Amino acid sequence: MKEETSGYEAQLRGIIASVGPVDTSFESVAQARLDQLTKPVGSLGRLEEIACRVAMIQRTDHPAVDQKVVLVMCADHGVTAEDVSLFPAEVTAQMVVNVCAGGAAINQLADSVGAEVRVYDIGVAGDLAPHPRLCDCKVAAGTANMAVGPAMSREECAQAVLCGIDASRKAAQEGFSLIATGELGIGNTTAAAALTAALTRVAVSAVVGRGTGLNAEKVAHKAEVVRRALEVNGAVGPGADPFGTLSALGGLELAALAGVVIGAAATQTTVVVDGFISGAAALAATMLCPAARGYIMPSHLSAEPGHGAVYAALKLEPIIEFEMRLGEGTGATLAMGIVDAACRMLSGMATLAEAGVSQAKE
Amino acid sequence: MKEETSGYEAQLRGIIASVGPVDTSFESVAQARLDQLTKPVGSLGRLEEIACRVAMIQRTDHPAVDQKVVLVMCADHGVTAEDVSLFPAEVTAQMVVNVCAGGAAINQLADSVGAEVRVYDIGVAGDLAPHPRLCDCKVAAGTANMAVGPAMSREECAQAVLCGIDASRKAAQEGFSLIATGELGIGNTTAAAALTAALTRVAVSAVVGRGTGLNAEKVAHKAEVVRRALEVNGAVGPGADPFGTLSALGGLELAALAGVVIGAAATQTTVVVDGFISGAAALAATMLCPAARGYIMPSHLSAEPGHGAVYAALKLEPIIEFEMRLGEGTGATLAMGIVDAACRMLSGMATLAEAGVSQAKE
Repeated sequence: MKEETSGYEAQLRGIIASVGPVDTSFESVAQARLDQLTKPVGSLGRLEEIACRVAMIQRTDHPAVDQKVVLVMCADHGVTAEDVSLFPAEVTAQMVVNVCAGGAAINQLADSVGAEVRVYDIGVAGDLAPHPRLCDCKVAAGTANMAVGPAMSREECAQAVLCGIDASRKAAQEGFSLIATGELGIGNTTAAAALTAALTRVAVSAVVGRGTGLNAEKVAHKAEVVRRALEVNGAVGPGADPFGTLSALGGLELAALAGVVIGAAATQTTVVVDGFISGAAALAATMLCPAARGYIMPSHLSAEPGHGAVYAALKLEPIIEFEMRLGEGTGATLAMGIVDAACRMLSGMATLAEAGVSQAKE
Repeated sequence: MKEETSGYEAQLRGIIASVGPVDTSFESVAQARLDQLTKPVGSLGRLEEIACRVAMIQRTDHPAVDQKVVLVMCADHGVTAEDVSLFPAEVTAQMVVNVCAGGAAINQLADSVGAEVRVYDIGVAGDLAPHPRLCDCKVAAGTANMAVGPAMSREECAQAVLCGIDASRKAAQEGFSLIATGELGIGNTTAAAALTAALTRVAVSAVVGRGTGLNAEKVAHKAEVVRRALEVNGAVGPGADPFGTLSALGGLELAALAGVVIGAAATQTTVVVDGFISGAAALAATMLCPAARGYIMPSHLSAEPGHGAVYAALKLEPIIEFEMRLGEGTGATLAMGIVDAACRMLSGMATLAEAGVSQAKE
């Protein structure tokens, strides 16, 4: 299939080509150290696996994630014209202001793990007043309605992905060693459901959920809108390319989130992926850039039904199952604390020899 | 059934009688605030439930758990004479020294959530050098072998419980608002299995596990030892009282852990209960002092098979499932970070009205 490559898209392909995989040889190096520490072998279960993942990413058996940042990508969705959300679209901009002011859930959760919160306007409809915490990267004033045509042009989509890549690169250059994805965007569970259905070929009914709190009737309507979007855009089928799918069905913040994942991989930085929206974007990122998968740290399992399909496609297991469905990066931020604990454990514990603790009897 | 009450036991009964329940009226007060915050109603799932629990304990809709401490109770077990552990008994004392020096897993995990670690010698065999982090509360130089008779006298047991109560009270008086239970004691999964089997009436085979890493043959032997302990002590049956059971089958650190839970309840402080050992002790605590249950915050589900039976008996659900089986308070400490996040969320977020965010459409 011939690909139209705009300037932005060509730039994106170049970056993707430069991303290398994690160094899997550090898994056994880290495991060897884990097995010498003052604890029974294997006794920290999942925490050991998490520590090994960061060891492979950072290429060391003494990993550390002292500096943490949550990158909150924000945009509006044309598909809100189809009445798919319980909240009016104006809430996106209102919530951007709330996060900048420190009043949102993500601010409190980030404080609890010592993470900085950065907010990116990738495509919020309407103007936002400047704020020190807000980066203006507006690509468009929201997407077009995917139920009648593509949500974005390929050029817009590539530009949004590049915004996300730049956000991760900037964070990595400033010394942040753990990045969490976050988002705000009324209507974005509809976009994530369409994207997930297209990328995983899972049935629409299995990936459409209540979003911010729809009743059963509204969920059925939302599924109908997603089906229409898939049909109108011809996004499912053997010929569909992931970038075309992301452009047609994604959102500007979803594209930017895919970029955050790719940018983290490009800078060998661990990226904790939040819930359903972030997960769908991460899945798109790994289809565009397979090497990026190794840099992804899973977080929670959302109450949104499509999230399980995303985890299955990513071949990852969630760390936490709290029936959360807020987004903003809230689940990823909780997981950041656990990743930090895992790294401190691997890097800071004494070995049996150092501590003079007796070995197991056999 | 006539109870022999020693001086210590009478003192303990007095404290237990003074423990009041949590104030359940604050559940709806906290939920009302949660439902006004800048997030869809119910969208933080389990995190909201955790915040409500602390609200009931602290009697406020603005709970906070800024000051955190892990109380690590340490003791030896006479039952190690039956070859029930992969590690020699001397490892208890060696690991106490390691925790004091900051080299153990609990030190690193506590650092990750900003918690202090305090170590209590409730009954370590052999002398320990003084250390600023170590409190000498030695009741005895380890328990007797429960496979041939009671592990402790009722007086020893009561004294150990009082040590735990004092540790919690001291912490609460110093301003700690979140206490985690932790322990060290070679052989203590055997004691916890016996205690759990006796208190829950679950089959011995369902509560005996690999401990620090036994093979199947050694696990079968360990189960046989537990069965003998139950039979010798007559600890299961309609006439068994929980305190007698704790004395006969518990350990000095298990008794102290039961005290930590009772002491936290007595001071209206949230206590995060760690894994299988701590859980079995907490179960004993709630049977001695039913009002204490409301002050317990669950943490992880251990890989030890008996832990599920403990949760079922406590009617609590674990927060994290990481296949961990280390003890020391490691699982509780991870949960502390989540409890902190939950409280910050409830207390620090803006309401829809404060932030000028539009309400849901219906």
